[in-house]
Amino acid sequence: VKIAVLGTGSVGRTMAARFATIGHDVTVGTRDVQATLTRSEPDAMGNPPFSTWAAGHSQVPLLSFAEAAANAELVVNATNGGVSIEVLTQAGADNLAGKVLLDIANPLDFSQGFPPTLFVKDTDSLGEQIQRAYPDVKVVKALNTMNTAVMVDPTLVPAPHDVFIAGNDADAKRRVAGLLGEWFGWTPGSIIDVGDITAARGTEMMLPVWLRLWQALGTNQINFHIARAGV
Amino acid sequence: VKIAVLGTGSVGRTMAARFATIGHDVTVGTRDVQATLTRSEPDAMGNPPFSTWAAGHSQVPLLSFAEAAANAELVVNATNGGVSIEVLTQAGADNLAGKVLLDIANPLDFSQGFPPTLFVKDTDSLGEQIQRAYPDVKVVKALNTMNTAVMVDPTLVPAPHDVFIAGNDADAKRRVAGLLGEWFGWTPGSIIDVGDITAARGTEMMLPVWLRLWQALGTNQINFHIARAGV
Repeated sequence: VKIAVLGTGSVGRTMAARFATIGHDVTVGTRDVQATLTRSEPDAMGNPPFSTWAAGHSQVPLLSFAEAAANAELVVNATNGGVSIEVLTQAGADNLAGKVLLDIANPLDFSQGFPPTLFVKDTDSLGEQIQRAYPDVKVVKALNTMNTAVMVDPTLVPAPHDVFIAGNDADAKRRVAGLLGEWFGWTPGSIIDVGDITAARGTEMMLPVWLRLWQALGTNQINFHIARAGV
Repeated sequence: VKIAVLGTGSVGRTMAARFATIGHDVTVGTRDVQATLTRSEPDAMGNPPFSTWAAGHSQVPLLSFAEAAANAELVVNATNGGVSIEVLTQAGADNLAGKVLLDIANPLDFSQGFPPTLFVKDTDSLGEQIQRAYPDVKVVKALNTMNTAVMVDPTLVPAPHDVFIAGNDADAKRRVAGLLGEWFGWTPGSIIDVGDITAARGTEMMLPVWLRLWQALGTNQINFHIARAGV
């Protein structure tokens, strides 16, 4: 499956690196390829310039959002939630139509500092905003409730833990569930389908407690597990 | 420890019954004792009339909110979140001052049907609203992220799972953590202190995904576990 990862931050880099490692045809999408490659300062989150990462991952082309989306069968939204809709506009509705969009972003608002608040919640979600803006796209919300390193390597957390998927298209969710296993090693029993895309309200609202748990436990190598009979 | 449980719904009944079973001096507080005892219809949630429960728990006196609070060393807020502040006003600031208030309520708004939304979230919480309204009370938010049956008997969920506590008073949190063990059997390793009372934002915002998980998994005998190295 040809994959486009939209976003050049640490989340996008980690996902793209994993796809390349396992031999998938992956590209990374960005707003302005030249600007991204010529930037020589760390980004706003303190990550090294993208060119540093790109030098170590020469098999991963950097394309415009539109080119990356056009060439892909499956698109990963690894952008900051605050720019996701605009990035998808640049990717282009025609380039996205009919495709599965794996949305791993969160609607975090850092404008008041840390901890961030959520710019949409409770009666709506980023996942729903994206689905409404691109009705021809099969949006599947998943992986947004954990650290990126854990997303791509669930064995980092030794005890059983879970990934939640939400979306309106049952086939797309089944496909993503299979890919989460193939790509990252998520077992079927660790994947919980929480319903249609409105369930993204619930999973996006887990971020605030996740941030508190990170502080309280002193590690981000943690994840939610839904304990229940037999699991 | 003399305990007052404020609220006569299923949550209050379950908590009070557990306290009585283990031999604690417990009272239940209500708005109007006579009205509560003479009601003969199921309540809005379909619970049998309180008098039916009271007949089987004659060792648990039903008092006004103020009397219950005045007689207690520790108060449990088991009311619906939407009336919690008003109930505590009836209980009386003087009757609550200096005491630990274990707040297990959630800010659920059922005015638009099911699933409920949250009437406060993200930048504030019910726990904080209560703490601000009663600054002399030691508010400890806990147990609000699970079904009542699981609150009082964590063995209902066989795998490891956790209870989150939040509050501004470290001694009050330590005391509650000890009592959760003594009362219900929560082990020290299953109690996670997520910080000051502002952390209630995070735990209260777990309700929407909990409701989805209840639907998706077909059981409310579930609970959150934070998987991490060694646990």
